[in-house]
Amino acid sequence: MVLDKINNPEDIKKLTLKEKKQLADEIREFLIDKVSLTGGHLASNLGVVELTIALFSSFNFDKDKIVFDVGHQSYVYKILTGRKDDFDNLRKYKGLRGFPSREESKYDFFETGHSSTSISACLGIARARDIKKEDFNVIALIGDGSISNGMSLEAINDLGYNKTKMLIVLNDNGMSISSNVGGISSYLSKISINEKYLKVKNKIKHSLDGTKIGNASIKILSRVKDGFRAFLVPSKYFEAMGLTYIGPLDGHDIALMTKVFNRVKNTDKPVIVHVVTKKGKGYQKALENPDIYHAVAPFDKAKGVEINEKKTYSYEFGKAMVEIAKKNNRVVAITAAMKNGVGLEDFFARFPNRSFDVGIAEEHAVTFAAGLANEKLIPVFAVYSTFLQRGFDQIIHDVCMQKLHVIFALDRAGLVGNDGPTHQGIFDLSYLSLIPNLVIMAPKTTKEIKKILSWSIDQDFPIAIRYPKGKDEMNLSAIDKITLGKWEIISNGKDVAIIACGKMVEKAIMTNYKYNLNLMIINAIFIKPVDEELLKWLRDNDYNILTIEDNTINGGMGSLIQGKLNSINFEGTIKSMGFNDKFVEQGSVNELFEQEKLTVEEIKKNVEILRRK
Amino acid sequence: MVLDKINNPEDIKKLTLKEKKQLADEIREFLIDKVSLTGGHLASNLGVVELTIALFSSFNFDKDKIVFDVGHQSYVYKILTGRKDDFDNLRKYKGLRGFPSREESKYDFFETGHSSTSISACLGIARARDIKKEDFNVIALIGDGSISNGMSLEAINDLGYNKTKMLIVLNDNGMSISSNVGGISSYLSKISINEKYLKVKNKIKHSLDGTKIGNASIKILSRVKDGFRAFLVPSKYFEAMGLTYIGPLDGHDIALMTKVFNRVKNTDKPVIVHVVTKKGKGYQKALENPDIYHAVAPFDKAKGVEINEKKTYSYEFGKAMVEIAKKNNRVVAITAAMKNGVGLEDFFARFPNRSFDVGIAEEHAVTFAAGLANEKLIPVFAVYSTFLQRGFDQIIHDVCMQKLHVIFALDRAGLVGNDGPTHQGIFDLSYLSLIPNLVIMAPKTTKEIKKILSWSIDQDFPIAIRYPKGKDEMNLSAIDKITLGKWEIISNGKDVAIIACGKMVEKAIMTNYKYNLNLMIINAIFIKPVDEELLKWLRDNDYNILTIEDNTINGGMGSLIQGKLNSINFEGTIKSMGFNDKFVEQGSVNELFEQEKLTVEEIKKNVEILRRK
Repeated sequence: MVLDKINNPEDIKKLTLKEKKQLADEIREFLIDKVSLTGGHLASNLGVVELTIALFSSFNFDKDKIVFDVGHQSYVYKILTGRKDDFDNLRKYKGLRGFPSREESKYDFFETGHSSTSISACLGIARARDIKKEDFNVIALIGDGSISNGMSLEAINDLGYNKTKMLIVLNDNGMSISSNVGGISSYLSKISINEKYLKVKNKIKHSLDGTKIGNASIKILSRVKDGFRAFLVPSKYFEAMGLTYIGPLDGHDIALMTKVFNRVKNTDKPVIVHVVTKKGKGYQKALENPDIYHAVAPFDKAKGVEINEKKTYSYEFGKAMVEIAKKNNRVVAITAAMKNGVGLEDFFARFPNRSFDVGIAEEHAVTFAAGLANEKLIPVFAVYSTFLQRGFDQIIHDVCMQKLHVIFALDRAGLVGNDGPTHQGIFDLSYLSLIPNLVIMAPKTTKEIKKILSWSIDQDFPIAIRYPKGKDEMNLSAIDKITLGKWEIISNGKDVAIIACGKMVEKAIMTNYKYNLNLMIINAIFIKPVDEELLKWLRDNDYNILTIEDNTINGGMGSLIQGKLNSINFEGTIKSMGFNDKFVEQGSVNELFEQEKLTVEEIKKNVEILRRK
Repeated sequence: MVLDKINNPEDIKKLTLKEKKQLADEIREFLIDKVSLTGGHLASNLGVVELTIALFSSFNFDKDKIVFDVGHQSYVYKILTGRKDDFDNLRKYKGLRGFPSREESKYDFFETGHSSTSISACLGIARARDIKKEDFNVIALIGDGSISNGMSLEAINDLGYNKTKMLIVLNDNGMSISSNVGGISSYLSKISINEKYLKVKNKIKHSLDGTKIGNASIKILSRVKDGFRAFLVPSKYFEAMGLTYIGPLDGHDIALMTKVFNRVKNTDKPVIVHVVTKKGKGYQKALENPDIYHAVAPFDKAKGVEINEKKTYSYEFGKAMVEIAKKNNRVVAITAAMKNGVGLEDFFARFPNRSFDVGIAEEHAVTFAAGLANEKLIPVFAVYSTFLQRGFDQIIHDVCMQKLHVIFALDRAGLVGNDGPTHQGIFDLSYLSLIPNLVIMAPKTTKEIKKILSWSIDQDFPIAIRYPKGKDEMNLSAIDKITLGKWEIISNGKDVAIIACGKMVEKAIMTNYKYNLNLMIINAIFIKPVDEELLKWLRDNDYNILTIEDNTINGGMGSLIQGKLNSINFEGTIKSMGFNDKFVEQGSVNELFEQEKLTVEEIKKNVEILRRK
């Protein structure tokens, strides 16, 4: 095994090309073996094996620094920087992170998780280097889906203008998480499938054997004339932005990439090297369905991933969207490169003219939705809770200030589990509830999604609906009738009153049942506005109150309820359960609920404390 | 007066070219007269007089729709859509808005205030039009500073790929709010000063007389060869993005622009028309100092604006930055196109190598700062409170999750007054306090800024400092010594305890003095973490508590304190004063404090209520 000989990343430089190719094969086998057992990001890591080896062949990460955009494609890098033996615990509680982690290794220079931060971060690192008069290379490794996000473009604009020495490696695998959208990605994807690509690539390869690298390859590309315009565009685009563009190169050709990296690291300009890779390479099933194998749960590597998406919140949301859209042709759907993740495949297939995938561009998505709503269409923007943080200002200004009827469907709200702190959806109730004019809702069970969505479609103001990853645990029936700002009373007990939202309603019911309590359980189907009338009734009937939410404790539902109770002179005792004021690490959802003390046992303890008051 | 004959926007079409030119002169005179009395955005509106007249000459805004990016340049449009007589109340309480307002006029189709939303909004409007099979033109009017923001680039990417019929008018006046930065702006500004510009322009003009508009002009531009590359770049850039590019045109040539607009409105493709205008045209002082005349307070139009920036919070911040940076060469400053506004001119002049203006690119700015901090520099990102909303996700992920030592200096926190709802900084305490690992501070007086800033520089974690527009009212002395999480006791009264932050401390002191009360007044110099020890002392000494903040009541300082008091079993009564859950309109800061009941009278009332408990 060549892999066993790599004790230090610098050992890679000593390998022959043949050994490097063998190393690539061994890493692929290792990845398939390990990720099929633990789950994780598979296809993208299979795609960057040679690219990562080439980076180690050229750069020295004891002094050079690399930032992996998003970071899900850093597994090969982790294997080669001494973390091979930790892969049995990949993405598990207290185990190896599925993303870069500064605590984990000195080779992880900057943490990522959300898209398109790498160029900005690298530019900061590079400028600090120049101020401190140090000398090392800074590399942003970024995919084609991420480079078209606005934040990347802002950073490229700054970089190209100020000509800071820095390298961008554009890893173009023809797709972001689901499929490419937008002008830039479109051009890039045309390249990778274009037959003439190989021919030109060979010429570049040849030209690189000469001494004037960079310029030479650009010239050759320039010879390809107007008839071949799509091919030329990446160079045209990045050159217009002030970068030196080299590519596209075969991202599985270790020798070629190493040669290019060796040359560009000695230039003082910002350079972008465009490599074309195949996501899923080395595992036929992943190669054929890179979208399915982007992120996988544990699976049988012989059989492949079995898809069982039914009955999840996402599935029920998608199904409801189709049913509603059949009857109401004003309903349109928007996704930011997450069509499958949010359950909108069927909607997109049935209503292509009312479906918009804007790519990884949440800012644009929100204001685009506002524009549609301005014309009396009813846009539903389905997005992961954590990613909507990117559209925060736009929700405030473009949707809520104008009271436009946009519906935000926040999937993956609360804990997501193994993706860890960068993906937990534990801030949404706080960052949304501070916004005037926005109604916030949560279904307590999958069955309630359609009811909430239908109701929301019939209103005329901005509404956010948040729901968790996965399925519900109990088979609760949906609320009978939705009335703005009215909560649902689930059980009319005389003991402490629990006000819970979403998934937490199940936990309250389980507590009541398990410990045979006599709780008043309330489903806060509206997180905002709070049900003031019901709160007054609780006040007048001398209840103590426990609020439970799967959101940070600061500024969330409990905080809204506390504020309201203070204003109505509530004199009982209130306690709020939620996540403490810290980032929540990776692990299974249940492990994390245990760690964060959001369990039936803890609910019971709090009920007992409140009962004594 | 031609202006008096315009009763309906369509009347403009009936004017001769000579009359239109006269109209332009009259509008300029009107703008200078009115804005010198009320204050407002002057230079940018003087720049778009002919452009706006040309738009009306070609389009019909009874069916066509226009979105003004940022919206501060919509005065001429307001004058010509029946709001001329309202200009005496421009930006005043209940008066004419300084930005587009849907309530104000049916001709204001979409509200703006923050940069770079227009293309996304227009794309939404245009796609809705196509879905509904309607037929009208959609126009985004956007400046060169705004088009390089990431959000614009995301929208252009979508637009260029999907080829939606829509027009972007790029109003290139060679500057955003202070000065241009970034690759795109740089290229654009080179055009406007280039001598060859006029020659080429004339050729375009000529070519437009033919029948094949658009293509013809592009061809002529293409003749200009490589040696003239900067000139070619806008076309190169926008064409690479999939738009049809026409320009640059003289933005003061009504006939030329009208002709171009008449032609492009019949094409079914996305088109960008690039016009070059002079900010401040028609008022020599504004032309010479467009930056100073961008937004002005009332001034004597003969004498011009007198600058008196001293003693403001911004000024004291800037002065402190310079003093600190002299001693500590790790301190670097970042602005997002607001160098003057935030008081950093002097810093930028003295420490050019440690100064970064990234343009209107807050997302990039935050993560760029994280990159600098990663290398142990100490970046201070000075930004208006409302604009930092754009970097929300990046503060969470790139700064606070990694606990990087970035300092956010939030200027214009609380009420800004006449700029109205899009610019009030009333959400920051809420959107920041939900973020783990972030310390939030506020000076109660200008003298305290330097103390807080010096202390912050010496720490090693993320810190946000928020302070208001303008000056302080009292001459309070600064806190003696800062200790993490410790509040300052201002007066040790036996009556109700007031916990106030920032500017609200002055109000508490004034209340105490005016009504001769015996209040316990606490300066919450740390909004987060709260001073738990002091809260326990208040609990143990049976105080009732009133919190006061110039922030929305949801999720702000009061909410943090209420949460903490609940967790320490406080049994007294607490009330929180802040802004109600709604957007706060324009007016003077004092008028708005009155309206929102944040006055000494209201504080006294609340003290009385609490005293009775």
